[in-house]
Order: sequence, then structure tokens, then C-alpha cells
Amino acid sequence: SKFEYVRNFEVVDKCLPNCWIVVRLDGKNFHRFSDDHEFVKPNDDRALDLMKKSAENVMNEFKDVVIAYGQSDEFSFVLKKTTTQFSRRASKLMSNMVSLFSSSFVYHWKDVFDHVPLLYPPAFDGRVVLYPSDQNLRDYLSWRQADCHINNLYNTCFWSLVQDAGCSPKDAEEKLKGSFSSDKNELLFSQFGINYNTLPEMHRKGSVLIWEMKDEITLQPQAKTSAVSDTNPAQREIIRQRRRVTCLHVDIIRDDFWNKHPEILSGT
Amino acid sequence: SKFEYVRNFEVVDKCLPNCWIVVRLDGKNFHRFSDDHEFVKPNDDRALDLMKKSAENVMNEFKDVVIAYGQSDEFSFVLKKTTTQFSRRASKLMSNMVSLFSSSFVYHWKDVFDHVPLLYPPAFDGRVVLYPSDQNLRDYLSWRQADCHINNLYNTCFWSLVQDAGCSPKDAEEKLKGSFSSDKNELLFSQFGINYNTLPEMHRKGSVLIWEMKDEITLQPQAKTSAVSDTNPAQREIIRQRRRVTCLHVDIIRDDFWNKHPEILSGT
Amino acid sequence: SKFEYVRNFEVVDKCLPNCWIVVRLDGKNFHRFSDDHEFVKPNDDRALDLMKKSAENVMNEFKDVVIAYGQSDEFSFVLKKTTTQFSRRASKLMSNMVSLFSSSFVYHWKDVFDHVPLLYPPAFDGRVVLYPSDQNLRDYLSWRQADCHINNLYNTCFWSLVQDAGCSPKDAEEKLKGSFSSDKNELLFSQFGINYNTLPEMHRKGSVLIWEMKDEITLQPQAKTSAVSDTNPAQREIIRQRRRVTCLHVDIIRDDFWNKHPEILSGT
Amino acid sequence: SKFEYVRNFEVVDKCLPNCWIVVRLDGKNFHRFSDDHEFVKPNDDRALDLMKKSAENVMNEFKDVVIAYGQSDEFSFVLKKTTTQFSRRASKLMSNMVSLFSSSFVYHWKDVFDHVPLLYPPAFDGRVVLYPSDQNLRDYLSWRQADCHINNLYNTCFWSLVQDAGCSPKDAEEKLKGSFSSDKNELLFSQFGINYNTLPEMHRKGSVLIWEMKDEITLQPQAKTSAVSDTNPAQREIIRQRRRVTCLHVDIIRDDFWNKHPEILSGT
Ligand SMILES: Nc1nc2c(ncn2[C@H]2C[C@H](O)[C@@H](COP(=O)(O)OP(=O)(O)OP(=O)(O)O)O2)c(=O)[nH]1
Ligand SMILES: Nc1nc2c(ncn2[C@H]2C[C@H](O)[C@@H](COP(=O)(O)OP(=O)(O)OP(=O)(O)O)O2)c(=O)[nH]1
Ligand SMILES: Nc1nc2c(ncn2[C@H]2C[C@H](O)[C@@H](COP(=O)(O)OP(=O)(O)OP(=O)(O)O)O2)c(=O)[nH]1
Ligand SMILES: Nc1nc2c(ncn2[C@H]2C[C@H](O)[C@@H](COP(=O)(O)OP(=O)(O)OP(=O)(O)O)O2)c(=O)[nH]1
Ligand SMILES: O=P(O)(O)OP(=O)(O)OP(=O)(O)O
Ligand SMILES: O=P(O)(O)OP(=O)(O)OP(=O)(O)O
Ligand SMILES: O=P(O)(O)OP(=O)(O)OP(=O)(O)O
Ligand SMILES: O=P(O)(O)OP(=O)(O)OP(=O)(O)O
Ligand SMILES: [Mg+2]
Ligand SMILES: [Mg+2]
Ligand SMILES: [Mg+2]
Ligand SMILES: [Mg+2]
Ligand SMILES: [Mg+2]
Ligand SMILES: [Mg+2]
Ligand SMILES: [Mg+2]
Ligand SMILES: [Mg+2]
Ligand SMILES: [Mg+2]
Ligand SMILES: [Mg+2]
Ligand SMILES: [Mg+2]
Ligand SMILES: [Mg+2]
Repeated sequence: SKFEYVRNFEVVDKCLPNCWIVVRLDGKNFHRFSDDHEFVKPNDDRALDLMKKSAENVMNEFKDVVIAYGQSDEFSFVLKKTTTQFSRRASKLMSNMVSLFSSSFVYHWKDVFDHVPLLYPPAFDGRVVLYPSDQNLRDYLSWRQADCHINNLYNTCFWSLVQDAGCSPKDAEEKLKGSFSSDKNELLFSQFGINYNTLPEMHRKGSVLIWEMKDEITLQPQAKTSAVSDTNPAQREIIRQRRRVTCLHVDIIRDDFWNKHPEILSGT
Repeated sequence: SKFEYVRNFEVVDKCLPNCWIVVRLDGKNFHRFSDDHEFVKPNDDRALDLMKKSAENVMNEFKDVVIAYGQSDEFSFVLKKTTTQFSRRASKLMSNMVSLFSSSFVYHWKDVFDHVPLLYPPAFDGRVVLYPSDQNLRDYLSWRQADCHINNLYNTCFWSLVQDAGCSPKDAEEKLKGSFSSDKNELLFSQFGINYNTLPEMHRKGSVLIWEMKDEITLQPQAKTSAVSDTNPAQREIIRQRRRVTCLHVDIIRDDFWNKHPEILSGT
Repeated sequence: SKFEYVRNFEVVDKCLPNCWIVVRLDGKNFHRFSDDHEFVKPNDDRALDLMKKSAENVMNEFKDVVIAYGQSDEFSFVLKKTTTQFSRRASKLMSNMVSLFSSSFVYHWKDVFDHVPLLYPPAFDGRVVLYPSDQNLRDYLSWRQADCHINNLYNTCFWSLVQDAGCSPKDAEEKLKGSFSSDKNELLFSQFGINYNTLPEMHRKGSVLIWEMKDEITLQPQAKTSAVSDTNPAQREIIRQRRRVTCLHVDIIRDDFWNKHPEILSGT
Repeated sequence: SKFEYVRNFEVVDKCLPNCWIVVRLDGKNFHRFSDDHEFVKPNDDRALDLMKKSAENVMNEFKDVVIAYGQSDEFSFVLKKTTTQFSRRASKLMSNMVSLFSSSFVYHWKDVFDHVPLLYPPAFDGRVVLYPSDQNLRDYLSWRQADCHINNLYNTCFWSLVQDAGCSPKDAEEKLKGSFSSDKNELLFSQFGINYNTLPEMHRKGSVLIWEMKDEITLQPQAKTSAVSDTNPAQREIIRQRRRVTCLHVDIIRDDFWNKHPEILSGT
């Protein structure tokens, strides 16, 4: 039709080839959302599990995601450098991932939050960032995990002061201002008997989703021609290797993790 | 931290000022989704209502949307030329809208689909397109509404042939190949007694969401000092004008609609 | 060859349709360049003429430029909204224009600077800016012309103080700091007897290049069959209208200019 | 002023960090330009020298160029991955380089073309391409050098047939259609006694500009206090290492060159 010319106003936004494509999404105004739904402070395991579940859904749809990392109200998905999905169109990749994540979040809400009603549909923002080198990518993930650590240490102190020591939020904030990591560790230990390093790894490290190979056993009926007997049963076990998303709560800043999972960066 | 440099790899993607910003989203693989959920063919009013409801949610969150248009599995949102939301960052605008739409779709599913279970979370893609002039914008919307008309006429014929005349899908396709609009209108009328123009406007025109002013009446208690009597009741009615999303199923190709709603383009 | 894949790393950078495309170029470090070549201060007519000459060359090559505006070491070229040159590829348009401008500048140097040697090849930067509406475009040009006025008024005062009143550059700067336009006009008049408004328009207004229609007379030989006589000469004058670049030094901020040259914005 | 808002329409176009930035420029319509100036066919050493000279100028201005490669009417400049020049703004980098190249080309024309007049100012287009990995960059350069080889072999055959064997251009084209490299080598040798591999390296390999360290000797006067004598002369030689552009005509496809010049990719 004579209106079709408007198509030409669309912009092609293909990602530069040979770069890691990171899609990060982050909850819109989750300060309020977590309040409205009375999230446990500072970490609500139900909320974190729901984030993980939604991220897993995204990975199962986007097979070229080699690793995903989540903490708080955010998740980052790393697409392999050579992905050709959606011809590497940034908007397509990002919108589809953020959309699926969001609808999964609502879809699975009741699985983890049980009878707590979801008061309104939440939203997540999304963005695409490109990283040319493996080092850049690792630094990106380290940045997010360091952020997790810093916030979690702070929040643990803050809510201990408020909930256990009866501080006002203002006083708690004041107390923590300018303190170093060591100060906060010390405070937790001396005042609340908390050894920070023994707190749940999910809270301290965030969630790392990767693919693992699992043996999958299926039963296949025997060919009709062969006689069925004890040593030759009617069905045969077929063992196949299948990729499955697995979730870890481990350090991804140091080399250890990467040495153990060379396939993530090597793309094999 | 020493990792923070990775921030610099993010790209600023502000939309060119003084352009209409259109965010269009479209259901991912809704061919299959509509099949899996046994949508009525060719138009399922529940599905269309759910799309509208989700779009309404988006508009209530994004007050700078001046008009939205939806049909089939897609919706377009038009942000006013002067919007400064998210500093006009394309990714932010698009991802937030597509995310909220998606989570709303799942959130409100049961309201319209009742006991039909949602089998899996759906996804929508999103894109941003800029239109410099009012004419370009109107042509864009005309393009989508013409698309609605063409598809709906075709689908109405196709499913009449398949469901009512017992044609195979292949035969139906064959019959309609190369036919003009007039041929299809004629076919519907002569073979199925259907006057296309009397079919539901929602199916033929799609859904147009705009803002309308509604009087909102609230009751305000009287000041304590004034004596309460028959002519001076304890409460007073306060009438305020409030914007509310309203849904129309009308032609937006011709001038009529735009003359009637000059505020949409004028931005007042 | 197996290397050709590197082509895919090139980015398509087509300009949004239906926008005015402005290419502005500006001399690289012309503070030094003008010093090295002892430009007259504050305005060197030779330099300005060379800029104009180079710009004219650009316009003769890029017929879709509807207006160009220059002042100091810069020039802006406005391509009509509908141009399809180089498929509207921004890099192509900008690089070709800035390149031709630069080579023209050197090529014509001796025509205006005569025996003053060009000590080294100069460079100009370039950029592309899109303007959706006519008003935006006019505001852009007004911005550049206002800049011309402000700088020229300041520079005229500054160099009068330095060259005629024997001020040191520092003292001159100090004197002018915080002064208004009216103060500067007054200073010029009272101290130097200069009526600013009578200074050359080229200095005060900059240079506006547009197309004008000129009658072009060519002689065409008569057809052989017709007899040649006094009333029927061997050659016939053919008058054709041809576009030619013309240079004005006029106000382009007020409506006057645009009313007089409606074809610039109307694109006819 | 009230016009300054138009500034906001400018787009920030910073290159993705940690990528090689390649700026390639190419003569506009040099088919005609080479004809008009009667370039020697297939290779005019004056033209190639002028390209090299202009590229050298660009390198001396843009110290972050680590290698430049030229052939025919094109030149590619590679900026080191970590360059911060112009804050990595693509338009700035590209326009300045293409501009300086163009003005240098005209500036030095007479140095190589002597009394051959330059009939009109030439233009070059420019583009920016990013390469994330060293391999990508090497493949890019290999692509350009392979292009040089293919064109030069073809052109050498073509012009031998036309100039030495009296073929019409059409016949020559016909003869070479579908021929392999080996065929062309054979043709040159058997019909024209030319051993392709002994032709000038500049024609077969193009021009590679890199930095080399040169000892630069300057004379420094002795301090006044020390007595001048035979063993203590009035002036002292100071030897300093200085970078200088050097031009090679060598293979850059194989590893050899890169092993010999590890500093190019290592960025030290
Ligand atoms: N209580 C509680 N709050 C959480 C949990 N996870 C995230 N949040 C809250 C704490 C923060 O206020 C918020 C995440 O911080 P953000 O920087 O993303 O801010 P927010 O989402 O409010 O604003 P934004 O729209 O992202 O700019 O989510 C949790 O497990 N428990
Ligand atoms: N039965 C039925 N199907 C519908 C209705 N609305 C949309 N659909 C289906 C028909 C089409 O197959 C599909 C929309 O076409 P699209 O071009 O968007 O294709 P699809 O979503 O399958 O693929 P995509 O991921 O968008 O490329 O959705 C409805 O009301 N009833
Ligand atoms: N004496 C003299 N100087 C001029 C004339 N036209 C331009 N200039 C000089 C004055 C300014 O220092 C300079 C233009 O200012 P810019 O803001 O473009 O700065 P410049 O080119 O030095 O640096 P840039 O590389 O553009 O950032 O050119 C002229 O006619 N006479
Ligand atoms: N005779 C001669 N011609 C040359 C020499 N170097 C380049 N050329 C000519 C041959 C080609 O026609 C032309 C370069 O080919 P291009 O693909 O760049 O085409 P051209 O510049 O004509 O068009 P363009 O504006 O780049 O699309 O320059 C030379 O040394 N001698
Ligand atoms: O959202 P914040 O506070 O983590 O900061 P940001 O994500 O870097 O900012 P933005 O969401 O505006 O890109
Ligand atoms: O999705 P279609 O078939 O309507 O076509 P498109 O939306 O123009 O294509 P794409 O979604 O790939 O931009
Ligand atoms: O160059 P200036 O000083 O006029 O300022 P600008 O042109 O706005 O800055 P830039 O050249 O860096 O875009
Ligand atoms: O100019 P060509 O023919 O070498 O081809 P190209 O450079 O790839 O095309 P363009 O100059 O249009 O980008
Ligand atoms: Mg944020
Ligand atoms: Mg958030
Ligand atoms: Mg967050
Ligand atoms: Mg689509
Ligand atoms: Mg769809
Ligand atoms: Mg659709
Ligand atoms: Mg500047
Ligand atoms: Mg300048
Ligand atoms: Mg300037
Ligand atoms: Mg080209
Ligand atoms: Mg060329
Ligand atoms: Mg070329």
C-alpha cells in the first residue's frame, strides 16, 4: 500500500560481530515492589528463586546464552560471540529476552510466593552491551558480582542494626557511612555474632546459570523382529547427553571458575 | 572498583528530539501460541481484550503515550514528540513498555480466559521507530490499520471456507490467491451471506486507545465549623476532570478521527 | 576470499528519512592556522572568500544542498529532506563533502592568497546533524548566524582595543568581560568612531549560499533545410534557465529572507 | 541564546572501547580522475607516491595510527585499540583524517606530478570500521592486500593485452573472463615474457606505513663553564630515538611481517 514507505524509518541495529553480547535487565522501581510485597530483608529467597526460574526460562529459549548472572532485581545474559540469532539485531534480542523474563516472572509467581498475591504486574528494563574481549566480559561479570558483595554486606549490616539492634534507619545509615568492608565484617561479628562468610552463598555470590551435560535416559521399544526375553527386554535404555541449565552460587571473579568451565569462553 | 570501566561500553541511544517515538511490539510466534491455546479463528475476542487490557496498563504507566493502536498480536504506542521520559533513551523506553505489556498479559490472562490454562509464558518483541512529521505518523498508523483490514478480510474468507464450506486449508488458500478485496467481499456475501461491513468493528478496525477526560466525582467532608443542614450537607461533591484511557474501534486512516481529536497531534 | 567476512563489520548509517540533513565542517585548530598565515584580524576577506569558494565547489557537486551558511572557519550545508544521494549514508555524505571542501581550499588558495605561501595542508572536521522540522532547521541556521554576530562584535572590539588603543590582549579581555551587546556597540562608537552596523555585511552576517536561476544563452545552429537569411540567421539563440550558486550576506534569522526564498524550504 | 537547543540534535558517536578503529578512505570516481590526469596504466607511480605522502601526513598528525595500508585510490588507517583521541568520536576521527589526506593530496600534487596540472580538486570518501580482535584486524588488512593482488594481476594482464597486444578493451575483458590466477600468470609469461613476481613490489603488495625508531642526532652547546678543548668540544652530540614513518612494500597476510613487528599489535 501507499503507506508502506514508513517501513524505511526502521533502523537496522545489528550488533558488531565477534563481540560478546550482554543483555542486562533490572527491575523497575523494585524498591517499591519489594516493599509492597513485603520481601524479606535484605534477601528474600522466594524473590531470588523467582528471578532464577525466570532466567532459566530465558536460557531454555535462547540456547546461545552461555552464562547468566543474577543478583538483587537484575539478571545479565551473555550470548556467545558468534551467535546469529535474530541476525544479531539488538532490539530483537533484548526485547524478546526481557519480555520472556517478565512474563515468566508473573507466570511462576505463585510457585514461589504461594498465597502472597501479586498486586500488580512488574516491569524490567533491558539494555544491550557489547564486550570485545574475554577479559572485558569477565570484568563485566566481576563488576556485577562485586556489586552484589558490596550491597549485600552493607544491607546485612543495615538490617541487623535496624531489625536486631533497634536502630532507626537514619542512625543505621549514619553508623555505616564511610566504613570499610573490614569494619562491616567486624560489626556483624562483634555486635550480632554473625560470621559474614557463613551466610548463604546465594546472598553473597548471587546466582550463576550455566549449561551442564546430564545423562538423559529414555526407553525405546525393541524392534519387533527380535524376540523378547529376560536378557532381551521389550524396551531398551537409551542414554543421551543433554544440556541442562544448572545454578551455582560461586565466585566468578577469580580464575578458578573459568578454569573449571573452559567451555563457557571457548564456545565449544 | 577496578571493574567499573566496563560501564563505558554502554551506548547512549537517545531518540532524535522533535520526532514521534513509536514503540511497536508483536507476539513471538503467536501462530503457535494461538493454536496451543485454541484461539477462536480468525478473531478471538478474549485474546484481543487481553491485548487491550495490557496496552491500557502500559498507557497508565507511560502518560506521554498519546495514542496506541493494536490488532492481531501487535500493539503500537506513540509517545509525544516532546517526551523526556527516560531522557528519550530508546532501550529504556522500549524495554520497559514491552516488559510491562508482557507481565500484564500474564497477570490478566485469567480475567479474560477464565479457566483456560496459560500453558507457558508468552513473549513479545519490541522496536523503536521515529517519525519526524505528523503525516509520517499518520501514515504509520494507517499502515497498521490497512494491514489489519487486509488480514482480517483474508482470514474471514479463509476460515469461512475451511470451517463453514469444508474446504481444506490448501484449497481455501488456492481459492483466495490473487483475489481482490471486492472478490473477497463478494465471496463472503454470496457464499456465506456475510456482509463484511457488519462484522464487529474491533475485528475490522483494530483497537485505538486514547485519553479522554472524564468527570470524577469525589466526596469531601465539610469543614467542621460550618453547621450541617439539609442545604449544607456534611459532605460536598468535588468534580475533577481526569484523563482516562478509552478504547475505540474506528477508522484512523481518514481525516475524520484526527479532526475530532486534534489534541492527539497538537500535544496539548 | 576467506577474508571477505570482515565486510560485515561495516555499519549501515542511513539518515532518518524526511529530516533535513546538515553537514557542518569546521577548521581544525584555525587559531594557529590563521596566526601562521597572518590572517587579518578579526576578519580576513581572503580567508572568507576561500571558504566561500570551497563551499561553492561543494554545492556544485552536491546538487541537493539547498542552502549553505558559513562564517569564521566553519560552513554548514543543508541537504533537502528528500535527498537520496549515497542512499542518505551519513559517512558517505559527510566524508565526501568535507574532503572536497578541504581539497578545494588548497586548490584555490593561491587564487585568493596570491603570493602568501600555504605552509601546510589544513584540515576540517565534519559532522552530520538531523533536523526533523523546518523550524528546527531555521533555528539551527539562526544559531550559527547569532554565533557569527556575537563573535564578530566581540572580536571587533577586542582588536580595536589591541590594535588601535594599544591595549594588551589581557587588558582588552578584561575590559570586555561581562559587557552586553549595547556596551560593545557604544564602545566602538565612542572610542573608535565605528558604527558597527556599517561594517561589512560579510563580517556581520556571514555568507549565505543559495541557488538562483540565471538565463543562460547558447547559440544553436539552424537546421540545414531552412534557408539562411537576415531574418533567419544561421544560428539561433537558445535561452535556458540554469541554477547557479549565489552568495548573499543577509539576515537569515528573521522571516524576511525565507519569505523571499520560499523554494529553499519547500523543496521545489 | 534561544537557538542553542539545536545542539541537542547532535549524536554522540563514540567507538566501542577496546576495538581496533579502522578508517578507510577511497578516491571518489577515480576512474575518471585517473583518466583526466592521464595516469600511467595500470599503475602510476606518481599517483601511488602522492597517496603515500598524504597518508604519511595523516600519520604524523595522528600518532595513534599504528599501521596504514594503501593501494590503488584507497588508504586504511588503523588506530590502536586504546586510543582516546577525540574521545574516540567516530565522525571527528574520520572527518579529520579524510580532510587532512585530501588537502595533503592537493598540497603535494606538484611535488610528484611536476608540471602536470591538477585539473580540479579530488575527493575521497571515508568510513569507520571496528574490529574487536587482532585476527579480525589482520583479516581486514589481508582482505585489502588480497584485493590489491587480484586487481593488479588482472589489470597487468588487461593492459598488456590492450597496450602491447593491440586487443580492444572488450576483447581483453573477454579473454580474461573466468580465468584463474595461474592462467593469468601463464598468459603474462608466455605472451609477454613477464614474470609477474618480478614486477615492482609496490604494485603487487601495496604500501605499508609503520613507525620505525630512528636515531636522531642533535648538537647541543656545552655549558659555558667547562673549558673547550679537543677532548671537550664546544658542542656535544645528543642521540635520541625518534619515531618516523617508514614505507614498506611487503606481504602482510602471512605471519612473517607480524612476527617481525610485534609492537604493532601489542601496542607498546
Ligand atoms: N527486601 C528486599 N529487597 C530487594 C531484594 N532484591 C531487590 N530488592 C530491592 C532493593 C532495592 O531497593 C531494589 C533494587 O535496586 P535498584 O537499584 O535496581 O533500584 P530500583 O529497582 O528501586 O529502581 P530502578 O527502577 O532500577 O532504577 O530492589 C530482596 O531480596 N529483598
Ligand atoms: N486464531 C487466532 N489467531 C490469532 C489471533 N490473533 C493473532 N493470531 C495469530 C495469527 C498469526 O499466525 C499470528 C500473528 O502473526 P505474526 O506475523 O505476528 O506471526 P507470528 O507471531 O507467528 O511470528 P513472529 O514471531 O511475530 O514472527 O498470531 C486471533 O485472534 N485468533
Ligand atoms: N585572524 C583571523 N582569524 C580567524 C578568521 N576566521 C577564523 N579565525 C580563527 C579565529 C579562531 O581562533 C578560529 C576559529 O575558532 P574555533 O572555535 O573553530 O577554534 P579552532 O579552529 O582554533 O579549534 P578547533 O579545532 O575548531 O576546536 O579561527 C579570520 O578571518 N581572521
Ligand atoms: N591508470 C590508473 N588508474 C588508477 C590507478 N589507481 C587507481 N586507479 C583507478 C582505477 C579504478 O578505476 C579506480 C579505483 O577504483 P574504485 O573502485 O575506487 O572506483 P572509483 O574510484 O572510480 O569509484 P568510487 O567513487 O570509489 O565508487 O581508480 C593508477 O595507478 N593508474
Ligand atoms: O540503575 P542504577 O542505579 O543501577 O544505575 P544504572 O543502571 O547505571 O543507570 P540506568 O539504569 O539509568 O542506566
Ligand atoms: O514480523 P513480520 O512478518 O510482520 O515482519 P516484520 O515485523 O517486518 O519483520 P521483523 O519482525 O523481522 O522486523
Ligand atoms: O568546537 P567548538 O568549540 O565550537 O565546540 P563544538 O564544535 O561544539 O565541540 P566539538 O567540536 O568537540 O563537537
Ligand atoms: O566502492 P567499492 O566498489 O569498493 O565497494 P564498496 O566500497 O564496498 O561500496 P561503498 O563504497 O558503497 O561502501
Ligand atoms: Mg538502572
Ligand atoms: Mg531496579
Ligand atoms: Mg537493581
Ligand atoms: Mg515481526
Ligand atoms: Mg507475531
Ligand atoms: Mg503480528
Ligand atoms: Mg568544534
Ligand atoms: Mg575550528
Ligand atoms: Mg570554528
Ligand atoms: Mg566504495
Ligand atoms: Mg574510488
Ligand atoms: Mg578504490
